[in-house]
Amino acid sequence: MVLSTVQLQVLLVAGTHGNEINSIWLFDEWNKASFLINTFGIKTHKVIGNPEAKKAGKRYIHQDLNRSFQKETFLSNKTSNFERSRANELINLYGEKGENSCQIVLDFHTTTSSMGSCLVVYGRRAADLALASLIQNRLGLPIYLHESDQKQKGFLVESWPCGLVVEIGPVAQSLLNSRIISQTRLILETFMEQLHEVKNLNLLFPDDLIIHRHIKSIDFPRDEDGNIDGFVHPLRQSKDWHPLKKNDELFCKLTGETIRFNENENYVPVFINEAAYAEKNIAMSFTKREIWNLEKEWKKSLVDIVH
Amino acid sequence: MVLSTVQLQVLLVAGTHGNEINSIWLFDEWNKASFLINTFGIKTHKVIGNPEAKKAGKRYIHQDLNRSFQKETFLSNKTSNFERSRANELINLYGEKGENSCQIVLDFHTTTSSMGSCLVVYGRRAADLALASLIQNRLGLPIYLHESDQKQKGFLVESWPCGLVVEIGPVAQSLLNSRIISQTRLILETFMEQLHEVKNLNLLFPDDLIIHRHIKSIDFPRDEDGNIDGFVHPLRQSKDWHPLKKNDELFCKLTGETIRFNENENYVPVFINEAAYAEKNIAMSFTKREIWNLEKEWKKSLVDIVH
Repeated sequence: MVLSTVQLQVLLVAGTHGNEINSIWLFDEWNKASFLINTFGIKTHKVIGNPEAKKAGKRYIHQDLNRSFQKETFLSNKTSNFERSRANELINLYGEKGENSCQIVLDFHTTTSSMGSCLVVYGRRAADLALASLIQNRLGLPIYLHESDQKQKGFLVESWPCGLVVEIGPVAQSLLNSRIISQTRLILETFMEQLHEVKNLNLLFPDDLIIHRHIKSIDFPRDEDGNIDGFVHPLRQSKDWHPLKKNDELFCKLTGETIRFNENENYVPVFINEAAYAEKNIAMSFTKREIWNLEKEWKKSLVDIVH
Repeated sequence: MVLSTVQLQVLLVAGTHGNEINSIWLFDEWNKASFLINTFGIKTHKVIGNPEAKKAGKRYIHQDLNRSFQKETFLSNKTSNFERSRANELINLYGEKGENSCQIVLDFHTTTSSMGSCLVVYGRRAADLALASLIQNRLGLPIYLHESDQKQKGFLVESWPCGLVVEIGPVAQSLLNSRIISQTRLILETFMEQLHEVKNLNLLFPDDLIIHRHIKSIDFPRDEDGNIDGFVHPLRQSKDWHPLKKNDELFCKLTGETIRFNENENYVPVFINEAAYAEKNIAMSFTKREIWNLEKEWKKSLVDIVH
């Protein structure tokens, strides 16, 4: 292992969606009183992902910033699309080759789904899995592995060598909530603590990690004109992470009709009834719960990035 | 009592705020299948209060529609302000002297506060209090009497001879929820049932009604620049309708400071942490719980309006 002399810098992003305000507020308070968060001596850069959408009280201005980090975006620097231009800007400022080169990014989100606190990993990058395992080992958080979803790409964290999304819910959009703020603060400090340990080569990796692997998303029931004509069944609402059994209720209609889960699969639903996903035709996503051995190469990948 | 020959027509408004979508969705489904709601033979008009804001996924375009029904608005018919123009339009279409003259209006809202189902009465109009008493008698809903608040005026229902707001929560903005839909449907049908009884002069009024009378609203703690620097205390969050005792926790700051209720009053807080009220500098409102005798004149006022 060759330890380089490059100083570890971590990018912390709040408000990638402008109406997910709890981490934005936490960062604002932290800017006023640096003692509020212990970063364990690691250099961090805090940014508001989408400040224009924050001002407008919206998720985004032109398009979802967290789907705007696409390779083709970076070919053309000039665009009137705010989120494409902001994606370029963030990469120029904090990307691997940016002015303030960050190796790791943490992207803080909230959801109207009852996800509790969880981590989202995009694809199977070794360092991401290693870092997620450290947080799961410390706090027990579930890990949602988002992959094999051709319709959704261009996620912010994918533009850095290592990066994770933190999702916390349920909370309404544009609402400050004490529980969400506490959860965000705890996870942020735990990340910094664990990175500090890796920096000092105190490697506290678990032997395995529990993954909820994305299989597919399902839409709401819709009428002939494409309008939603059923809602999440009361027995499914707020039941994120609870495994589905065959014939379990998924949706119901006002006519009394119930739409049930009729597959012979052991699926675990996540992001049930996230307000912002209706426009993406997603009522919930199905995952499979798996236990994976932690590979030595994954640990090495993270250690290499940190040093 | 002189019974007129004017047919009772009731205006039902969903989505006065464009991101309060449950009643909008219920009305859409009802338009497709008329049997879904029993109106007990009473003529109703259903409208989306703010269709432009609904399309934009926002509370409003230029200003809060439910503060846009001001007398001065109606003097000038031409305005580029969407909500002022929409207020004029609704009055021209469904006002007392409108094309489809409605005598009573019900305005369906949702809130991120844990208000359960409740009725809001603006001022002390006799017919409003009589109608609210019928619903409270039937469903036990609390009544919030909004008055003595100079900063807030121009509410939609005030432009009709009789009108009530229905508030249901908690639910996030822009989120369909089975519980909220069921509550909306139940209250709507109960209104129609009770109006039907009044129409038939089956007068089922209670002897008294319980009122939560608005006293004042309080703001979030703010720093020198006017930014919110504290949030609703976890012991106060979701405790709408729970009476306050002296020294009860109201807010806390990340520094650990707790801001307490230090008045010698028996206040009952409502609309605790409603997402849309932060811009109005309202963290919660204080009310006093009172039991009022139902005056004979109030009943007569409602009977006169219905007939």
